[in-house]
Amino acid sequence: MKHGGNIWEVIEKYKFKVEDILDFSSNINPFFDISKIKKIILSSLNEICFYPDPEYKKTRKKIAEKLGLSYKNIILGNGSSELIYLLPKALNLRKTLILIPTFSEYERAIKLNGGKIMFLRLREEEGFKINPNKIPKLLPHVDSFFLCNPNNPTGNFVEKEDVFWISKKMGDEKFLIIDEAFIDFTDKEGIAEKVKEIKNIFVLRTLTKIFPIPGIRIGYMCGNERGIEKISAFQYPWNVNCFAKNLIENLICVDVKEIREKIRKEKEYLYESLKSLKGIKVFKGEANFLLVKFEKGIILKDIIEKLKAKGILVRDCSNIRGFRGNFIRISVRRRGENKRLVKELKWLLNQ
Amino acid sequence: MKHGGNIWEVIEKYKFKVEDILDFSSNINPFFDISKIKKIILSSLNEICFYPDPEYKKTRKKIAEKLGLSYKNIILGNGSSELIYLLPKALNLRKTLILIPTFSEYERAIKLNGGKIMFLRLREEEGFKINPNKIPKLLPHVDSFFLCNPNNPTGNFVEKEDVFWISKKMGDEKFLIIDEAFIDFTDKEGIAEKVKEIKNIFVLRTLTKIFPIPGIRIGYMCGNERGIEKISAFQYPWNVNCFAKNLIENLICVDVKEIREKIRKEKEYLYESLKSLKGIKVFKGEANFLLVKFEKGIILKDIIEKLKAKGILVRDCSNIRGFRGNFIRISVRRRGENKRLVKELKWLLNQ
Repeated sequence: MKHGGNIWEVIEKYKFKVEDILDFSSNINPFFDISKIKKIILSSLNEICFYPDPEYKKTRKKIAEKLGLSYKNIILGNGSSELIYLLPKALNLRKTLILIPTFSEYERAIKLNGGKIMFLRLREEEGFKINPNKIPKLLPHVDSFFLCNPNNPTGNFVEKEDVFWISKKMGDEKFLIIDEAFIDFTDKEGIAEKVKEIKNIFVLRTLTKIFPIPGIRIGYMCGNERGIEKISAFQYPWNVNCFAKNLIENLICVDVKEIREKIRKEKEYLYESLKSLKGIKVFKGEANFLLVKFEKGIILKDIIEKLKAKGILVRDCSNIRGFRGNFIRISVRRRGENKRLVKELKWLLNQ
Repeated sequence: MKHGGNIWEVIEKYKFKVEDILDFSSNINPFFDISKIKKIILSSLNEICFYPDPEYKKTRKKIAEKLGLSYKNIILGNGSSELIYLLPKALNLRKTLILIPTFSEYERAIKLNGGKIMFLRLREEEGFKINPNKIPKLLPHVDSFFLCNPNNPTGNFVEKEDVFWISKKMGDEKFLIIDEAFIDFTDKEGIAEKVKEIKNIFVLRTLTKIFPIPGIRIGYMCGNERGIEKISAFQYPWNVNCFAKNLIENLICVDVKEIREKIRKEKEYLYESLKSLKGIKVFKGEANFLLVKFEKGIILKDIIEKLKAKGILVRDCSNIRGFRGNFIRISVRRRGENKRLVKELKWLLNQ
């Protein structure tokens, strides 16, 4: 499966340096001061010679404190992708509801474990809006529901009250798995805090979006104590490296309000600029990216390749199940970078 | 499952600093110049903001070059423990032969996947020697054989010719999985180079023993192309962090002959010194650790706890299946450190 963010392919093909690349294809925050992160890594260097605490108790406690939970409500992952693959096995998911288009790893993880999937297609005509009322009638046919909230790559968000309503409809024997990878970019409240009371909800989180550290691999999940204990029993030991561990401990309480505001402004700018280009339609959503549809007749592959040749990467959505037509996903970057993308796209569309 | 190397427990309990700890419980090389490793990490800092290449092609090529293989013969793991857990699922292992005592993760990984285990107990009276002739008659009852070579924690080694002989007896439909985590510490040749020709062998390797970097998580496995492709299909994406990736690329070709010689000398010293203590018996093996048995009547738990209170950790083997009696495992460290351990043990045994 191809994802965004594979800058290495482009670097090799076009002989770029890492610093030449303008990556709009992975949804990484461009505003966070990376020197803070480097400092934490440097101060962790003395730990490389030791195995991490296999229980990661201190790290889990830090997360728990921030969320008003116990460390027993928290499990760490080598990126949240490890946890996405752990869940189907640990919870023995046999049939799962997935709304498409969405993040492709849910489907792969479930199928690898021999599970089946019921797809519910979000409609372009409705702006890919997620309608909670459509869910209950599907629930008798599945044992679980994977919801990306806000959804990647459409950006649509299901409000808290609706999530709780669905969770109630699901009952205690079924699992509602909410992936809040992009929650920090919205002004919405996540629901991780609620997993103590609501036993059928598991909430996935990552630190590698709002903090720009996807190279280090950090994710976590919140759930009720018994559930987390059960899932942990399926995990391999020492899955989280010492840098990831220390970054969580130091970053989990960082206030990201200001950064969120900066991204919101840039997103507005990028949205308005892209909207004015001919031949494309822009979907805004709640996250730090925009979904862009190109008119029929525009050869998307060519545009993507021509951008690549200039060191600019966007996320080609053609391999994401559920889209009809030519879609790309563009993450929000700094003003000058956004300007450059718009300029290049404008030029390419006018050719 | 308790392992060696959990210094964090001791640090918390006795209020030590990391640098106060003398860790004989994890088998990490104390002679490698850690500044080399820190330099590689510093030069990788610009990569933290990017997802790694999900295929890790460059890294796999570096390993392959060193071993005379193709990159398609190599798969990377977030530590070799990730791969130990991936194998039973990807190869659908239903019943596996394991020689005990050995590394406990094989058993856990197989059982988590619903597989069964046939144990063959190595006998203390025979110095825990592995007798290849005992294997063929067990093979009809299993579909796979996990062999740690040299074996952890006994240090015994099965010669290359015997491994090939067993592999032949197994036939093409069964899998021989060799964990060579400690091969770099021996003067023996590994068999990773042979996986092209011998289709039923998979060889696990780690970089976190000979290079002292267990905090960073690096392992890999060699096997035939089709097998590796099949196993990769079960892996979650971006499992190896950017530091691990770059450390492999830079360290895989480092010559460790001199270090091996230093460890051999220190091991000899530690062996002779421990042997002279009353009430204990020492097993030497081929790796960078010694297995030590305490006479009946000695309360091992007390000794271990008293060492901990002084910041000294040894590996308590009481939770390892297959031992009868009081065993600990001690890894070889630098002369001064080894001396200190012997002195403390002598004092405790004479009390």
